[in-house]
Amino acid sequence: MGTENQDMDNVNIFDTTLRDGEQSPGATMTSAEKLEVARALSRLGVDIIEAGFPAASPDDLNGVRRIAEEVGNAPRGRPSASSQPPIICGLSRAHREDIDKAWEAVQSAARPRIHTFLATSEIHMKHKLRMDPEQVVERVIEMVEHARSLCEDVEFSPEDAGRSDPEFLYVVLEEAIKAGATTLNIPDTVGYTTPGEFGSLIKGIAQKVPGIEDVTLSVHCHDDLGLATANTLAGIRAGARQAEVTVNGIGERAGNTSLEEVVMALHTRRPIFRLATGIDTTQISRVSKLVSNYTGIVVPPNKAVVGANAFAHEAGIHQDGMLKHEATYEIMRPETVGLTQSLLVLGKHSGRHAFRVRLSELGYALEEDELARAFDRFKALADKKKTITDADLEALLADELYQPPEVFALDGLQVACGTMGMPTATVRLRGPEGEEHVQAAVGTGPVDAAYKAIDAIVGVPNTLLEFSVHAVTEGIDAQGEVTVRVQSKGGLQTAHALRETPQPRTYGGYGADTDIIVASVKAYLSALNKLLISEGQDGQMRVLAQVGAAPDTGTAQDVQPAD
Amino acid sequence: MGTENQDMDNVNIFDTTLRDGEQSPGATMTSAEKLEVARALSRLGVDIIEAGFPAASPDDLNGVRRIAEEVGNAPRGRPSASSQPPIICGLSRAHREDIDKAWEAVQSAARPRIHTFLATSEIHMKHKLRMDPEQVVERVIEMVEHARSLCEDVEFSPEDAGRSDPEFLYVVLEEAIKAGATTLNIPDTVGYTTPGEFGSLIKGIAQKVPGIEDVTLSVHCHDDLGLATANTLAGIRAGARQAEVTVNGIGERAGNTSLEEVVMALHTRRPIFRLATGIDTTQISRVSKLVSNYTGIVVPPNKAVVGANAFAHEAGIHQDGMLKHEATYEIMRPETVGLTQSLLVLGKHSGRHAFRVRLSELGYALEEDELARAFDRFKALADKKKTITDADLEALLADELYQPPEVFALDGLQVACGTMGMPTATVRLRGPEGEEHVQAAVGTGPVDAAYKAIDAIVGVPNTLLEFSVHAVTEGIDAQGEVTVRVQSKGGLQTAHALRETPQPRTYGGYGADTDIIVASVKAYLSALNKLLISEGQDGQMRVLAQVGAAPDTGTAQDVQPAD
Repeated sequence: MGTENQDMDNVNIFDTTLRDGEQSPGATMTSAEKLEVARALSRLGVDIIEAGFPAASPDDLNGVRRIAEEVGNAPRGRPSASSQPPIICGLSRAHREDIDKAWEAVQSAARPRIHTFLATSEIHMKHKLRMDPEQVVERVIEMVEHARSLCEDVEFSPEDAGRSDPEFLYVVLEEAIKAGATTLNIPDTVGYTTPGEFGSLIKGIAQKVPGIEDVTLSVHCHDDLGLATANTLAGIRAGARQAEVTVNGIGERAGNTSLEEVVMALHTRRPIFRLATGIDTTQISRVSKLVSNYTGIVVPPNKAVVGANAFAHEAGIHQDGMLKHEATYEIMRPETVGLTQSLLVLGKHSGRHAFRVRLSELGYALEEDELARAFDRFKALADKKKTITDADLEALLADELYQPPEVFALDGLQVACGTMGMPTATVRLRGPEGEEHVQAAVGTGPVDAAYKAIDAIVGVPNTLLEFSVHAVTEGIDAQGEVTVRVQSKGGLQTAHALRETPQPRTYGGYGADTDIIVASVKAYLSALNKLLISEGQDGQMRVLAQVGAAPDTGTAQDVQPAD
Repeated sequence: MGTENQDMDNVNIFDTTLRDGEQSPGATMTSAEKLEVARALSRLGVDIIEAGFPAASPDDLNGVRRIAEEVGNAPRGRPSASSQPPIICGLSRAHREDIDKAWEAVQSAARPRIHTFLATSEIHMKHKLRMDPEQVVERVIEMVEHARSLCEDVEFSPEDAGRSDPEFLYVVLEEAIKAGATTLNIPDTVGYTTPGEFGSLIKGIAQKVPGIEDVTLSVHCHDDLGLATANTLAGIRAGARQAEVTVNGIGERAGNTSLEEVVMALHTRRPIFRLATGIDTTQISRVSKLVSNYTGIVVPPNKAVVGANAFAHEAGIHQDGMLKHEATYEIMRPETVGLTQSLLVLGKHSGRHAFRVRLSELGYALEEDELARAFDRFKALADKKKTITDADLEALLADELYQPPEVFALDGLQVACGTMGMPTATVRLRGPEGEEHVQAAVGTGPVDAAYKAIDAIVGVPNTLLEFSVHAVTEGIDAQGEVTVRVQSKGGLQTAHALRETPQPRTYGGYGADTDIIVASVKAYLSALNKLLISEGQDGQMRVLAQVGAAPDTGTAQDVQPAD
């Protein structure tokens, strides 16, 4: 099959964590989080960052623009192979306004790309587009030409290619090339194909589409049948030189192809594939953790490459006998993906210098005031916990640095609960004007009680979609990390690139503390703050206004049961 | 490739959740849990249940024997296609004593199988076995013959076949067939191969091993590069008619091939594969949830088939327009894997009859006393929570029915915590003799405080390896489910089928409550109870004896800070 006899070639890694990943249920990130993920992806060495779908909302457009400006012009920190900043790509439906917005968002990048798409499968053309094949071809030509009139680098995807008639696909792709597309991406949108089928599809395109040799052929797979990685590799072997992936394989339904699986398969089986990527594999673990924290989408212990059990034995163990023996069961070294357990463990006697050095070794570059705040948090944690590991530091930094601006801030929490019934929480928050609010509430448990007390203050009707806690490190004195997802009732809906129906917007929140009730409260407030900010930014000041006009502004010290 | 032109054939599903899955870190289940999983697997319609590795310990042997006796003789409840009970299989290394123990464990099943294995890759023969290829062939002949002298149904696996020399593999397999093996299983032990390679390996075996047409060819893959499902399907297309899988893909490192992915790929792409299985797909969701609860190994939302987001839209929505539209993005219906949201929602006014009917619809057959206890729990929950969903019922039943015998039982808990510091928990437990113990402790958070108070009573040195909480259902009044994994310090080690080095034993615990601190305490006690029982059963009564002799037996009402 395919390219077995060619020399070592390169596969471009196109990361769509911030677009296809972020639009999956509950994976919503704030603009600040997206920027941080984009920075991490750039350091990881991805070639193209699909930063979002700018036409979704002004907020989305601004998020992509900020990434284009900051990450799209910063070659520093990239793995040595790349001396250029990553390409920053914006997605657009095949509409003139979408394409204009995508261009508006990405144009400030040193290397901008517009990505546009239109469905080519019979089921999509008939039920979704209500267009006949000739109209589809015309629209593709028109929109690719328009995109190309704005931008040198244009990617076109025939949506649901996996279920499209190959002969029709060849026609569409040929016209897209003639209209100026520089990358042709073949998506298995619904995760339907097998590696044999998908490889044949790519092989057919590589052989039969005139002009294909002058453009980059790309693959984009979904994991509905658990075959995304295999399909992507089959596409690469059949000639694709760009793989569209997400960190941890997040994405709609069963998710997209996992970046880490494709990269490590190419790396581990290099003699078979004879293909390189620009990825610095030692950053894979950290980026995986970052994305999991920001999205609240857990990585199970048995996930390939990035799961907690993925390696045969613990990182950092260097007894030679053990190593020799474990090689019989280990095809990758944990160090290769950056799983090195720090030998330098920090404790309560560690000074600011040791703290700063460790953070810098972990790849964090903090401003002085951020460092000061983080160090205070570190000392407080070290008072409670004997040893502070890298995982503790990363949880602490995530909690400290990457929170949304605080509309409401936690000022105090007091909880009583147990088997005697009537779990009660008292919450004190500082509001947008610095005013103090205190509320007590009874709930079905301490988290419910605390959330009810917060709701009584914040007053934003919402549904808690998901709530999860896990311990950062081993031992009973571990920090707990809480992630939540909330959805506002009657709030913003978000346009979805692939659907016609708008979807209610969901917001994720994250909190870490040695007290899991405190962490739960922080996570909920962080999600509510995101909600308040987002719903305020879209011209809908309704929610913020309502908060401003709430009767309990000022220093409402009166404690009332909310339940 | 392979078998495209043959008629509809059957692939046997060999489930090794209870063996390869259960021996992965932290997935330890009690004998009662294993029996319950085996029952669920039988109802699901798997053809073969690998029930364990009897030589690991007397406890493991007894667990397999109980499954052989009870599940291995019960044809009832199986999907209509199967009128026979499942084959019950026991794993054994290629040692005479192992094989004898496997036979002792499985012989009472109506259809017993002995599975034995020996490594055939150069790296394994050299570093692990320290045997030359001739010795390996001799041992295989001898041990397969011995197994066959005991049992009609013998499976042989050349371990690390994926990295073995195919020519040597053909010799070993031919000899195994001549010695009496009836199934030859080809494992990609380290998850190293690509679908192309693995398919070729199976094709080569199917073509070149004399006598292969009279035995069943089987595949067993691991997911280290994210390719387990694709490799398994490639093996099936190349002629394998047995697939070794686990529920949720649990297993060592990145896990085994997922049962649900292979079954649903064969089902969804039936025109391509033209192969059937005996699986009742509508039970997949429930079995997935059961295994996740018992092992504490989470299923991420983006997991194919069984993840919370796996389907394009929520189950139970039957607006026709919606359906037509969603078909453009959905290749499976949620109902096919049993994701039906109950329209009958129970509440506080639901009577015992409605409760019993719903449980029976969900597939639970409770004894009268179990039903009475569960109904009491249900009423208590309905007092706190407006609507009780199927997920709530399943959490409640898991918490109520499948707990280990209580060595220590929770009698009362009182917690105070918050941002003011000094989180404090008071715990009252009933001990093995019915005596009462009360302890208070201060911790870094409420869970830490409660666990320290419990430790002060139970007195078993242990390490908390993992702690996670998630909400069962949406809404802030949801029940919280807590899973923990603990490891005893200086306690039992467990023999591992594939390794020479023993591993420390870990125990999982599960608790559900609307108060997550109460749920946390229940989960910890459930893990400690498992630990006390297991470490007591192995002739090492040390721990239980120590508890019996602890100075604070009797009604120790004196409250002392443990910290």
